[in-house]
Amino acid sequence: MEHKKNDTKTKETSRIDAFSDGVFGIAITLLVLELIQILHSQPDSGLLKTILHNWQSFLAFTIGFITILVCWINHHAAFEYIKKVDTKLMWINGFLLFVVTLTPFPTAILAEYLEKESRTAVAIFGFNYILISIAADSICTYAYNHHLIEEEHREFYYSYKLIYRYAIFFTLVAFLLCLVSVVIPLILYTLLFVFFAAPKEFSSRLYKIRKARKNNVKK
Amino acid sequence: MEHKKNDTKTKETSRIDAFSDGVFGIAITLLVLELIQILHSQPDSGLLKTILHNWQSFLAFTIGFITILVCWINHHAAFEYIKKVDTKLMWINGFLLFVVTLTPFPTAILAEYLEKESRTAVAIFGFNYILISIAADSICTYAYNHHLIEEEHREFYYSYKLIYRYAIFFTLVAFLLCLVSVVIPLILYTLLFVFFAAPKEFSSRLYKIRKARKNNVKK
Amino acid sequence: MEHKKNDTKTKETSRIDAFSDGVFGIAITLLVLELIQILHSQPDSGLLKTILHNWQSFLAFTIGFITILVCWINHHAAFEYIKKVDTKLMWINGFLLFVVTLTPFPTAILAEYLEKESRTAVAIFGFNYILISIAADSICTYAYNHHLIEEEHREFYYSYKLIYRYAIFFTLVAFLLCLVSVVIPLILYTLLFVFFAAPKEFSSRLYKIRKARKNNVKK
Amino acid sequence: MEHKKNDTKTKETSRIDAFSDGVFGIAITLLVLELIQILHSQPDSGLLKTILHNWQSFLAFTIGFITILVCWINHHAAFEYIKKVDTKLMWINGFLLFVVTLTPFPTAILAEYLEKESRTAVAIFGFNYILISIAADSICTYAYNHHLIEEEHREFYYSYKLIYRYAIFFTLVAFLLCLVSVVIPLILYTLLFVFFAAPKEFSSRLYKIRKARKNNVKK
Repeated sequence: MEHKKNDTKTKETSRIDAFSDGVFGIAITLLVLELIQILHSQPDSGLLKTILHNWQSFLAFTIGFITILVCWINHHAAFEYIKKVDTKLMWINGFLLFVVTLTPFPTAILAEYLEKESRTAVAIFGFNYILISIAADSICTYAYNHHLIEEEHREFYYSYKLIYRYAIFFTLVAFLLCLVSVVIPLILYTLLFVFFAAPKEFSSRLYKIRKARKNNVKK
Repeated sequence: MEHKKNDTKTKETSRIDAFSDGVFGIAITLLVLELIQILHSQPDSGLLKTILHNWQSFLAFTIGFITILVCWINHHAAFEYIKKVDTKLMWINGFLLFVVTLTPFPTAILAEYLEKESRTAVAIFGFNYILISIAADSICTYAYNHHLIEEEHREFYYSYKLIYRYAIFFTLVAFLLCLVSVVIPLILYTLLFVFFAAPKEFSSRLYKIRKARKNNVKK
Repeated sequence: MEHKKNDTKTKETSRIDAFSDGVFGIAITLLVLELIQILHSQPDSGLLKTILHNWQSFLAFTIGFITILVCWINHHAAFEYIKKVDTKLMWINGFLLFVVTLTPFPTAILAEYLEKESRTAVAIFGFNYILISIAADSICTYAYNHHLIEEEHREFYYSYKLIYRYAIFFTLVAFLLCLVSVVIPLILYTLLFVFFAAPKEFSSRLYKIRKARKNNVKK
Repeated sequence: MEHKKNDTKTKETSRIDAFSDGVFGIAITLLVLELIQILHSQPDSGLLKTILHNWQSFLAFTIGFITILVCWINHHAAFEYIKKVDTKLMWINGFLLFVVTLTPFPTAILAEYLEKESRTAVAIFGFNYILISIAADSICTYAYNHHLIEEEHREFYYSYKLIYRYAIFFTLVAFLLCLVSVVIPLILYTLLFVFFAAPKEFSSRLYKIRKARKNNVKK
């Protein structure tokens, strides 16, 4: 019976995984097109000069790449425990993919407006992070509430759900701080990367803290 | 024996699934290139102004994205019950992928001509929907008639086949109405999205209605 | 033991399948970028006029799409019987993918030079077909000679190998005929599409003819 | 139990394989966009003239294609023995994908600056090779040190790890030689291609040499 459950899981989630992997992979690779554009824009100046002059494009490429990679790592971690997929989950996942697909656009904005209109550029990129957090939270909450996850990991998955709820508040605060500063949001977004670089480790730490607290309350 | 049938299924349909998922994933992600184009077209005006001025591009991106996502969800649902793939089905599926691959083109038309030539732009997009419906209907009808679906789901699959037949007539009517109006077709296409957002639920409702009617006739 | 062989097969060929499917899927979807280009080139004339004026782009898109789809169907059929993959086969397959990846280039040539320099444009596209035939023949011959195919299908696979050998001669002749005419090569390429649209059926017919002839010789 | 280990392996590494295959496949296919650009840059001269005039673009396309193909073949070989994936390996693999995704950029540089600033163009391409070597070495070293590979292949995997360590030094030397010459680095990079075209055969030869030496020492 154990074996059969695994089989079903593979069948049920393999196509949503494959489609999502495709979208992540293409969105992350399309970022390079903005870099190639550089070469066509100033054909007369020297090569090294052209590259150094467009340092923001390389910074934006790196930020865009890490953003989508972090999304993929979190998607991978969230779907590892999901055993069933229904139409609604496909739509919520579709919303996440919508934001991931959009990501090359704010990345191109960063590349071109980081000097001219830094605050607006960072705010637009930050708005993207709010949407990603909402999408990630929706996936985990829906999967948790509708028992689409493996029963034995249900309690652990709750911490999972929590970290994306926190992410919404965190990205909202960072977004609002764009009104007053550019540096503070950038520090907060770096922290966000550090936290969600390893979502499994992050949520399992939270899980242990919550368990320890529960035990203390019992006593 | 159950197990063996599953194995064969995986082997037979896994590559057509993977190829289709790839095409869907790329077509949906290429849509963002039209958005990035915006940034290069008016480099002198402010960032927010440029974005707000091109609201049709964002609307077109969203419509294009939902269109391809709905196609993927329907493709996923239709192929779930297909257990065998022959060369003809590959060609019919190829026709569907042809239309999906084309979709970024009418989407770009929407973005650029929604203000200038709204009726023609909507009609071209609507023509795309007719082709998608014909392709979806052809896949289901062929799979049904040539017994490529699992025998136990054959009766249910019939309702499946029916909803895409309805879709052809629906999209045809909406297309013809483009001659007299822009608003009415847009409402009809929104309804189309709602119906085919959950093809499994839609067709199983139809299945129950048809079953109930049959039982009434028997009495 | 039967089961184990299947397992090994899946493990050995699944990644080369996935990589190839990705390349086919992207190459086929990139073709649409040439179509979108149309909208940016003549922004002042009417929408329908712009589309009708660029009919060659749509023809080229369709030809490019069918070319890559036929390649994928043939790739699918050729790899169905391959049970082992070694480094050399990866390189031969890499050569096929090289030509498939190139295909959007001759397609763009067709779109832009079909009126101006029809003979050269068709010849370049035809050169692409020679390369594809050589690549397909190399894959089948290598897999056959190095016993990478399932032993029970070995005899059948020989006919498979033959049809791609024929294709090399066929495409060579069509290419040389470009020196004298445009119409004759186009007819030959249409025939090529018809033959290789269903490679399995084509080679199994050849297999039966060869078997019948052998039996006649024996008598 | 054997069977279960295989199952786990498939589940653990299949998504990182699929995502990586997607990125490799897209990066390799995007290279063609640079070729298509040629057709738009000189619309007035003849077709054959335009193509021959841009021979560097075709050379760059070929070099870029082989580079990414060699990366994929090596990635395939390195992950064949990896049975478990943790978050850190995902990040190291992410670094490799970062460099692979970047590759179309130095390829475009080669195409446009090979005549004008050959030394800088080759040096930038060479810098890319250093990064690829470091990424490949990091993956193998991490997998080896953290026992993520199948235990029975551990000794063989050590030779695997070694060849990428050698590659770092090799690409570093070639990069520094760009300061004095263009021809010598190009010869060295060709040698690099030859060595890493068949990483499995290369490392197994090394493995045998090291084993023979060990046995000699024992005597």
